[in-house]
Amino acid sequence: MSKAKVTQVYLERISKLHEFLTKQELDAVVITSPKHVYYLTGFFTDPHERFMGLVIPAQGEPSLIVPALDREAAAAASTVQTIHTHTDIENPYELLKQVLPANLKKLGIEKSHMTVERYEALGQVICAESYADVEEPLREMRLIKSADEVARLQKAVQLIEDTLGETLKTFKIGQTEMEIVAELEYQMKRLGADGPSFSTMVLAGEKSALPHGTPGSRKVQEGDLLLFDIGVAADGYVSDITRTFAVGQISEQLRDIYETVLAANEAAIAEVRPGVTFAHLDQTARDVIAAKGYGDYFIHRLGHGLGMDVHEYPSVHGQNQETLRPGMVFTIEPGVYLPGAGGVRIEDDVLVTETGVEVLSKFPKKLTVIG
Amino acid sequence: MSKAKVTQVYLERISKLHEFLTKQELDAVVITSPKHVYYLTGFFTDPHERFMGLVIPAQGEPSLIVPALDREAAAAASTVQTIHTHTDIENPYELLKQVLPANLKKLGIEKSHMTVERYEALGQVICAESYADVEEPLREMRLIKSADEVARLQKAVQLIEDTLGETLKTFKIGQTEMEIVAELEYQMKRLGADGPSFSTMVLAGEKSALPHGTPGSRKVQEGDLLLFDIGVAADGYVSDITRTFAVGQISEQLRDIYETVLAANEAAIAEVRPGVTFAHLDQTARDVIAAKGYGDYFIHRLGHGLGMDVHEYPSVHGQNQETLRPGMVFTIEPGVYLPGAGGVRIEDDVLVTETGVEVLSKFPKKLTVIG
Repeated sequence: MSKAKVTQVYLERISKLHEFLTKQELDAVVITSPKHVYYLTGFFTDPHERFMGLVIPAQGEPSLIVPALDREAAAAASTVQTIHTHTDIENPYELLKQVLPANLKKLGIEKSHMTVERYEALGQVICAESYADVEEPLREMRLIKSADEVARLQKAVQLIEDTLGETLKTFKIGQTEMEIVAELEYQMKRLGADGPSFSTMVLAGEKSALPHGTPGSRKVQEGDLLLFDIGVAADGYVSDITRTFAVGQISEQLRDIYETVLAANEAAIAEVRPGVTFAHLDQTARDVIAAKGYGDYFIHRLGHGLGMDVHEYPSVHGQNQETLRPGMVFTIEPGVYLPGAGGVRIEDDVLVTETGVEVLSKFPKKLTVIG
Repeated sequence: MSKAKVTQVYLERISKLHEFLTKQELDAVVITSPKHVYYLTGFFTDPHERFMGLVIPAQGEPSLIVPALDREAAAAASTVQTIHTHTDIENPYELLKQVLPANLKKLGIEKSHMTVERYEALGQVICAESYADVEEPLREMRLIKSADEVARLQKAVQLIEDTLGETLKTFKIGQTEMEIVAELEYQMKRLGADGPSFSTMVLAGEKSALPHGTPGSRKVQEGDLLLFDIGVAADGYVSDITRTFAVGQISEQLRDIYETVLAANEAAIAEVRPGVTFAHLDQTARDVIAAKGYGDYFIHRLGHGLGMDVHEYPSVHGQNQETLRPGMVFTIEPGVYLPGAGGVRIEDDVLVTETGVEVLSKFPKKLTVIG
């Protein structure tokens, strides 16, 4: 996109938030999460414990409050022109108070990002009469991905799939989980990703049965399942895929859970189209697994939304009666985990289209023997 | 340490928190940050948006609430024996309510970790009369590092210094900042670190003048300053060091700011001992830099505490009149940033001892030419 077009994207997003502000009769909104500052201005920084806020008043232009040391970077990247700075020895909420409209009644904040500590500190200085959460309009905006966002997600998926492909070329039986993690993360960077989008997970053998296990010095052995749950961040967007491989000859039981999980994954994907519920997708996968007698071993939801965050809306679980809409992107990741023996999870990233589904992740899913 | 001794460490920490609870007349404390659950139980997981809580009641044994898929890992790692689980379709606060004492009046929570959204959701179910922040006793405990914690910090420092050493061996003029980042992160993993403790920063030339710049496709050229701000996480503890190198022949001005920053770094370190104030350390470094005429270009505090977090207490700035105590660990990182020309920062990790200082970081600081 041209620079003018990119600027336009950010201005439209701020404008949508401003509509919400007007409807809710807020005097102003303060956006404090680095991701949403990025989403709304194009400027990303992690200010750590320092305060950063995008101020959108009911009347007048938005402005950005950043730590002094971010002034230059903010000026270069942000579409918001007015930038205020504070140093480490100032109370940033005093500056915020000056920037906010006088006689503030109702202030919009990010309740799912702001900590109770900051809320209390801000409240003491700002003294608004009430605080409204602006999570909902941001979530609603982020839920439906634009073409540009889909392109970035597709790039993040491509990068992690290339990473996996390159890493498998160097795989040898006897490597430790951590050695494989190191290779994956090296390849990610080499291929141009910003880095992993979450803690890179490589689990071998009985450890693959831990849905949240931690890679360690376990060596990969013949007969293991080897599970990769991996993703990258690139240009502010993330991927998240899981593939499980057979290391040499695996047991009939492990082969059976693999085929079961693959069937569940494919059955759920086949149901993705506008209008069906997330609960239906979850149930579809769960039915396939239950029919094979592994119902008790599928112990998490089917998936989660994907975008700037690796876990965002929608949540794909059995109680979610919301319906799929074009532009939504989420994971489909059924799994079966047999304690002590091994686990299989197969996770794809899918986009709801006008007519059905586009599976963004293309890495082959047929049971593949490595090593 | 033996397993029994390790268990003892966690039990003592919980017991210290219990003392605070008694003193403040709390009915219970709920710890929700993954780091503090780890600090108090030995069990680490990142439950993402799911709820996890360590419940310490005034009477009775502590227990742990984790997502169902973490049960096995929690049982294996936690010194707290009683583990309750919830699935994605349950309201975790209902479970929390059952686990908490009945007729709850005053509940301790982590206000600097809990979001306003969770606070409100929890409050609706739990309905305590008031909520107290338990940040202070945790901060106080974490402020003074045990011998075991110092050993872990030392290991994290050693790992990042080995990483830097290995990476410099492969350095060539013409590499991009991101290529060097990839090499650094590969070496970290290969050497056994869990990963970077923050976004690995390599900035070349004029970009080194951005204290929070982002590595990109900028190629390293003859005459550049090349700044590495890097650290690793290992065993739950982190390192954070900065070294700046000369790439080939650099200008007299850049050489001058290097010598100035190094003198400021050494002057501040020479003042580290129990009883002096953090403000004094900051001022010591600032005076050296101001005397050379670069006072306006040192635009951040001198340093920050280091432990499980890469930014934790104490804060080393000019207004902090608290005094140094043995067992504190923090960074000393003066910098001078000349917009458009280049910046130098030299950052060490130091431990306050009974008699003075132990500098944990040993990587040479004399101006070094590379490439």
